[in-house]
Amino acid sequence: MSKTSIIEKIINSPVAGKAGVPQGYPLRRWKAGEPALDGGVMLGGEGRIADFLGRALAGDYDILAPGDRAALLFDATSLTTPDRLRELYDFFHPHMRSLRPNARIVVVGTTPESLHDTQARITARALEGFVRSLAKELRKGATANLVWVDPDAVGEVEATVRFFLSAKSAFVDGQVVRVSARPTDGATSPTDWARPAAGRLAVVTGAARGIGATIAEVLARDGAQVICVDVPAASEHLSATANRVGGTALALDVTDPAAAQTLARHARERYSRNLDVIVHNAGITRDKLLANMKEEQWEQVLAVNLLAPVRITESLIDAGALAEGAAVIGVSSMAGISGNRGQTNYATTKAGIIGLVDALCAPLADLDSTINAVAPGFIETAMTDAMPTLPREVGRRVNSLQQGGLPVDVAETVAFFASRSAAAVTGNTVRVCGQNILGA
Amino acid sequence: MSKTSIIEKIINSPVAGKAGVPQGYPLRRWKAGEPALDGGVMLGGEGRIADFLGRALAGDYDILAPGDRAALLFDATSLTTPDRLRELYDFFHPHMRSLRPNARIVVVGTTPESLHDTQARITARALEGFVRSLAKELRKGATANLVWVDPDAVGEVEATVRFFLSAKSAFVDGQVVRVSARPTDGATSPTDWARPAAGRLAVVTGAARGIGATIAEVLARDGAQVICVDVPAASEHLSATANRVGGTALALDVTDPAAAQTLARHARERYSRNLDVIVHNAGITRDKLLANMKEEQWEQVLAVNLLAPVRITESLIDAGALAEGAAVIGVSSMAGISGNRGQTNYATTKAGIIGLVDALCAPLADLDSTINAVAPGFIETAMTDAMPTLPREVGRRVNSLQQGGLPVDVAETVAFFASRSAAAVTGNTVRVCGQNILGA
Repeated sequence: MSKTSIIEKIINSPVAGKAGVPQGYPLRRWKAGEPALDGGVMLGGEGRIADFLGRALAGDYDILAPGDRAALLFDATSLTTPDRLRELYDFFHPHMRSLRPNARIVVVGTTPESLHDTQARITARALEGFVRSLAKELRKGATANLVWVDPDAVGEVEATVRFFLSAKSAFVDGQVVRVSARPTDGATSPTDWARPAAGRLAVVTGAARGIGATIAEVLARDGAQVICVDVPAASEHLSATANRVGGTALALDVTDPAAAQTLARHARERYSRNLDVIVHNAGITRDKLLANMKEEQWEQVLAVNLLAPVRITESLIDAGALAEGAAVIGVSSMAGISGNRGQTNYATTKAGIIGLVDALCAPLADLDSTINAVAPGFIETAMTDAMPTLPREVGRRVNSLQQGGLPVDVAETVAFFASRSAAAVTGNTVRVCGQNILGA
Repeated sequence: MSKTSIIEKIINSPVAGKAGVPQGYPLRRWKAGEPALDGGVMLGGEGRIADFLGRALAGDYDILAPGDRAALLFDATSLTTPDRLRELYDFFHPHMRSLRPNARIVVVGTTPESLHDTQARITARALEGFVRSLAKELRKGATANLVWVDPDAVGEVEATVRFFLSAKSAFVDGQVVRVSARPTDGATSPTDWARPAAGRLAVVTGAARGIGATIAEVLARDGAQVICVDVPAASEHLSATANRVGGTALALDVTDPAAAQTLARHARERYSRNLDVIVHNAGITRDKLLANMKEEQWEQVLAVNLLAPVRITESLIDAGALAEGAAVIGVSSMAGISGNRGQTNYATTKAGIIGLVDALCAPLADLDSTINAVAPGFIETAMTDAMPTLPREVGRRVNSLQQGGLPVDVAETVAFFASRSAAAVTGNTVRVCGQNILGA
């Protein structure tokens, strides 16, 4: 009897449900025309954010609705000494039994590194332990996330809170997003929160199929014009994606040293403008233990996943081919955070993407632009469908939502970063993983 | 049939070994008089660290020994562009099949945040994905860890590399330690690497039993004088610990507002000096889902685990009761990093300890002092022995070393931080977890 067959049999057996194999509650995902949240928001806390948020959200959300809550939103910026962490208990404890399915919990605190007062900094950092634990206690598709806001970025927090209060963040759970202070004339609030990318020109690499194609679709849904890029061999699927999203197809190998120039020229010739958004989605795997890995398996993965995004991003910046207010978006991976057996090559590149975000955050801020990355967990794709049963069934379920995510979940987070309303969100690598237990 | 009984039966069944329940390779742990490493070190890379390390280690280690390797040490500080990451493959790939049991892999790179060059910073950050993946591929008790060194801290890296090259780091795997530049007159190298805490006066809270008692023992073994602290109710065990380590016992509740004053007075009266080391090991759990948690369960955990260490540390600093060159050491937890179901209170405090490290790193550096924390994973204690079978057996094995750690593993890491030779190691929270898969 093979190693896996015993466990496979258990997972697939009729007693699996009884034996505790979790099935996952159906997640509510965003649909145009439906409310972002299915019910009222209870707003708590007495910091510098609560008033602003109450006013900003009042048009679209039912704040302080009686009865069951679809969301609990807590302004923790007033908690400046560790003993005041007690206010978390006081606010959340009484409501933990009366949350609706797919509820949202959002805690907003001050970015610890921005605080010079020792007690305040410790307290802000402690919020992370609370939120990540609470996320693990929630059931029925509910999520909990933490937003850290720089002291002078009160007005910039709205887009991030709206993302977490909506069905767009269905598979983002137990995560932290940092919102930085940005000079703004207030022009970053979209006229229509349902089309936050209206007027933006976006590039998506690896757009022929899978997650890349879905990213193109969601950006188009949000109002962007989309240049769909993939290797020449994928031209047929690429054209299909481009047609579906009303964009253009550009067959291009991202490892081509002239890739950035080709992109910039395409944007100029077909759209007469610079790029607002670039999503470095193209990526490959060549999994082997390092002991068995061939040179070319190392080289290929490095070339596509890391050298190409680095070269393209730097070349676009140097050539002035990014518009003011641009958003650069990388695709990292949980493997880039925690490492993965058989993926020394892949994890090196995906940790490198986090490095790209860190390294270009400041120079891009000087251009009023942002850079962020998504780190997908287990996402249901053709690739995961082809996995052996045991790792697939386990991989799917070892997260707080007890199910795999969908490509649209990655795409929604990318679209959040891509929107001009997220102009104060930069330097983040956000996991789209349902709070997968794997980490570092 | 209950939820757990099926899985329990499998784990405990005779077929468990065949069914892939990992048993873990016996770890070699440090013993006075035995060599730090059981075999030769192969040193690679051409950066600014290799020459220094070759000379510094030559007296105690067999560098460039032929045959099977007990350690591979790679200086990656020369990798300043992502394409040069290929040199990792070139160095490690040929040797992956000829590592001895309990081998050590150590990669030394430059701290990414210290690098202004984009390419160099990306490359340095990418090392983390490589090392964390490689650690997951090693077998038979071998570990891989990463050291990030500030550009002008070459001479300060020795203590950290020695720690990772020794059996003292048996349960530290897949981790990152940062070494900062420090003004030094070279006085931080101990005259005897086997007694690196000689002449230091240390306080250990929660020292009556368990991990705290072991920390006291290891610090004493390393040459420190130890003040053992615990609550009055534990006085009998506390005296036993103090006698065993040749130290003094101080019955004291850490939540007492005057705790710091009492500690400082004890040090003055009994040792006529200030404190060199304080280890905030005392901690409690009161696990409950937040929905079921009583006020006092929140309050007690916050008071002992977070408010007390914060108050004591700040009071000792304010009172000038820490010696120059002091080391403050917190005990965080994996729950403080990843959150844990049923531990909103505990995880809040353990994330707060990470905040304490972050917040006091700079002010303590001004006093030529350091602050770091350990974050234990699954450590075999009376508490884990009392766990139900299933979580215990799973918790023990879900790490790269496929076994629980021992209290001495936590204590060795604490002792590393406590030594004056680690004067350039500050601001770290290091997991002692065998590269547990749980994370964030």
